[in-house]
Amino acid sequence: MAKKTAEEAEVEDISKGRYGTYDLIMSSEEKDLPFIDVSKLNTSLEGKEVWVRGRLHTSRTKGKTCFVIIRQRVHTVQAMVFVGEQISKQMLKFISNVTKESIIDICGVIQGVENKIESCTQKDVELQVTQFFVVSMAEPRLPLQIEDASRPQDDSSGLSVVNIDTRLDNRVLDLRTTTSQAIFRIEDGVCELFRASLKKRGFTEIHTPKIISAASEGGANVFEVSYFKGSAYLAQSPQLYKQMAIAGDFDKVFTIGAVFRAEDSNTHRHLTEFVGLDVEMAFKFNYHEVVRTVAGMFIDIFKGLKRTFQHEIEVVRKQYPAEPFEFVEPALILNYVDGVEMLRADGVEMGDEDDLSTPAERRLGELVKQKYKTDFYILDKYPLAVRPFYTMPCAHNKKYSNSYDMFMRGEEIVSGAQRIHDPNLLTERALHHNIDLEKIRSYIDAFRYGCPPHAGVGIGLERVTMLFLGLSNVRLTSLFPRDPKRITP
Amino acid sequence: MAKKTAEEAEVEDISKGRYGTYDLIMSSEEKDLPFIDVSKLNTSLEGKEVWVRGRLHTSRTKGKTCFVIIRQRVHTVQAMVFVGEQISKQMLKFISNVTKESIIDICGVIQGVENKIESCTQKDVELQVTQFFVVSMAEPRLPLQIEDASRPQDDSSGLSVVNIDTRLDNRVLDLRTTTSQAIFRIEDGVCELFRASLKKRGFTEIHTPKIISAASEGGANVFEVSYFKGSAYLAQSPQLYKQMAIAGDFDKVFTIGAVFRAEDSNTHRHLTEFVGLDVEMAFKFNYHEVVRTVAGMFIDIFKGLKRTFQHEIEVVRKQYPAEPFEFVEPALILNYVDGVEMLRADGVEMGDEDDLSTPAERRLGELVKQKYKTDFYILDKYPLAVRPFYTMPCAHNKKYSNSYDMFMRGEEIVSGAQRIHDPNLLTERALHHNIDLEKIRSYIDAFRYGCPPHAGVGIGLERVTMLFLGLSNVRLTSLFPRDPKRITP
Repeated sequence: MAKKTAEEAEVEDISKGRYGTYDLIMSSEEKDLPFIDVSKLNTSLEGKEVWVRGRLHTSRTKGKTCFVIIRQRVHTVQAMVFVGEQISKQMLKFISNVTKESIIDICGVIQGVENKIESCTQKDVELQVTQFFVVSMAEPRLPLQIEDASRPQDDSSGLSVVNIDTRLDNRVLDLRTTTSQAIFRIEDGVCELFRASLKKRGFTEIHTPKIISAASEGGANVFEVSYFKGSAYLAQSPQLYKQMAIAGDFDKVFTIGAVFRAEDSNTHRHLTEFVGLDVEMAFKFNYHEVVRTVAGMFIDIFKGLKRTFQHEIEVVRKQYPAEPFEFVEPALILNYVDGVEMLRADGVEMGDEDDLSTPAERRLGELVKQKYKTDFYILDKYPLAVRPFYTMPCAHNKKYSNSYDMFMRGEEIVSGAQRIHDPNLLTERALHHNIDLEKIRSYIDAFRYGCPPHAGVGIGLERVTMLFLGLSNVRLTSLFPRDPKRITP
Repeated sequence: MAKKTAEEAEVEDISKGRYGTYDLIMSSEEKDLPFIDVSKLNTSLEGKEVWVRGRLHTSRTKGKTCFVIIRQRVHTVQAMVFVGEQISKQMLKFISNVTKESIIDICGVIQGVENKIESCTQKDVELQVTQFFVVSMAEPRLPLQIEDASRPQDDSSGLSVVNIDTRLDNRVLDLRTTTSQAIFRIEDGVCELFRASLKKRGFTEIHTPKIISAASEGGANVFEVSYFKGSAYLAQSPQLYKQMAIAGDFDKVFTIGAVFRAEDSNTHRHLTEFVGLDVEMAFKFNYHEVVRTVAGMFIDIFKGLKRTFQHEIEVVRKQYPAEPFEFVEPALILNYVDGVEMLRADGVEMGDEDDLSTPAERRLGELVKQKYKTDFYILDKYPLAVRPFYTMPCAHNKKYSNSYDMFMRGEEIVSGAQRIHDPNLLTERALHHNIDLEKIRSYIDAFRYGCPPHAGVGIGLERVTMLFLGLSNVRLTSLFPRDPKRITP
């Protein structure tokens, strides 16, 4: 590959051909250089010459020496450039001028160090640079500095921190912080553990349509789409389709996909588009068969995250301090009435059939944590009046229902219920809620040809990640968040 | 649990309490009955009394005997009811009247049989019924018969078959055929193998927004969404966001999610909403590093499907006969110009820089199959003129590009390319395509702060499943398909 070497005019440059800027990589050739990941460097490789491609994180020139830190995701290593037999003054000058965040190729010899390098994740080795090329040069003025974006929000040093809007406006840079890298590795882990746990239990993964013909859940909070000469809506949840899959004999299903809520809620925990982890399962006689399955799945996720992502959890905690996430096994299931009693004993005034306000949910989370030492619990048997029409009433007390929410650190992450699988009762409950039967006809019809009793849950992925880590804004756990005020980038 | 036993008036019913219709299951109790899956029945369990919950597939009464076939997804077993010491005439009559497709609970004793039961998947055992309850009764008139929906389309028996619209209008019933059950198990397998293969190669799963502010790829074929007081669009692909993830240091990413195409194409292979399996990957010097990775992933998928789903593949083939899917390892990569040469030698007239028509693609698939014995291949180095503006031109010949499609049985399932990672060249190419720079500013800006060279692919999940199985309509592999004329159920 041809390289534009710097300062070609100076014929006496001893480093000629050892540094410069690559031509734009257009795949003109294959090259087999011994590249190594920064994370794999170690003292046993001392003396070996290797190639590393990464970001120029920082560089500092002092006389005839330049210290460069190269970053690869959550890993960093120091590289040293000394003017000498191989490295010319011109080469040092070239390296000194490479902008931060540029993608660079370094060839260097791995060397052990006497004093640990505290500023890098590779503390015991560094690279002695022999070649240095720029793959992709960053513009010199960055809209935010990676160091600033990596600082705790309550940093008392007086150094600048980056607010959430600046981060999100420049998400490509914000995603490069070790904190962001760690958050999205953990979120990847949540999905993988969710699937693995359910697959182990015999579930099938399905995919449900996002474009729907009618807003089945009442019509509010739904985005309208122009659809050729007509119009359609964006699904607020895959629930109807999960239920149809059950009526279609899939027995146990899950789906991961976008769900849409046209709510003008500008809070720390609402998004207009989020990733739903949805589960639906036929059961034999009692919906607690499903509740126990989902609770067991959450325990699998929490354990898996603690087992696999301890390093990432610690990385996030450095920027966003939080107590470790606690849970008990088996998961705590609390009856709604008992939850209300705990709140009343704490001075909260509310009626038996009132829904919980967000502050009441938080307070109950604290009380549960004090009493049961768990950040995860299930609140069961909600008042029928505060749940959707398709919720199965409780057999023993018609004021209540076979429905439940699940909480992490006092915030709701899951809503679920046994669904009514009988078309007559479903019709009766829809009429009670003043729902236009014509609009939900295909939903009701799905249960006319035999359907097993079933229950399910809808889980918000970004909330699970946020609350497991104890973060304070769901936008930190959405790659490109959408809210009433933001649909870019 | 209280049961409405039939014919309670007749006091002499010896079977009282052993049959009837359950009250609606509202989770009033937990019950621990020894349920077993139909697939797990076998002769070693002979003499054991078990419970089975399933569909009443068919029943036939002959004198004092009733033969019932119970279905669970792709498995069936025969159950025998004999009037005798335990079974009254009333009970037999009740069972005879239970409608097809009802969900039933049968308690019975497992028995070996002398002559194999050819009409069931359980050929060596049957159940001698001792108890029989209806869990959920199907309406007597079904909009389609499961047997009809299970018959090959070219059936010469003269018996009725079900056309695609009737199937889709009554998808809940159509999904119950063993063929549908097998298709969606295989599709689940495609997703699982896709993820496993990429995870093994160090990829991270991400989630990208479906609601976007501007139609980045030119503006045609995009659905508009009303978004609070303004408007937005549905993403035609996650490409921009995958690329931003690469610019944000994720290195190798994949995402599975809905993609939307507002194309008024009413063909066997177009959907307005489908599931995209998307991959994006940074490479060192040549995009063939990415092509080989994706090709290897496809080989993993094909091998995995053949290894794990042989039974399901055979089930599908009974209704939809097709040749087994063939592939070679490593995958065949053919240059576009050589493909054009093969077509010309076959009598097709086309210019060097013309795009391939759908019939030409199909013909080329046949020629490749004859010559190379593979149903999967990669066509590489497409003419630059027929590809999107962000496609990297070929370094050696600016008429061509670093882009490729992948084919199964002569139909395109993948489109991909090295993307331009340099903001200046990207601007130049956008201007050449007469694209309004203002609308793609944030896209171009994503590459200003250093970005490694990268390439990717977008894969249509439903097409992969369809073509692996040799099906003739993509609607068969979409749970609830969406096309210009259908957004229900």
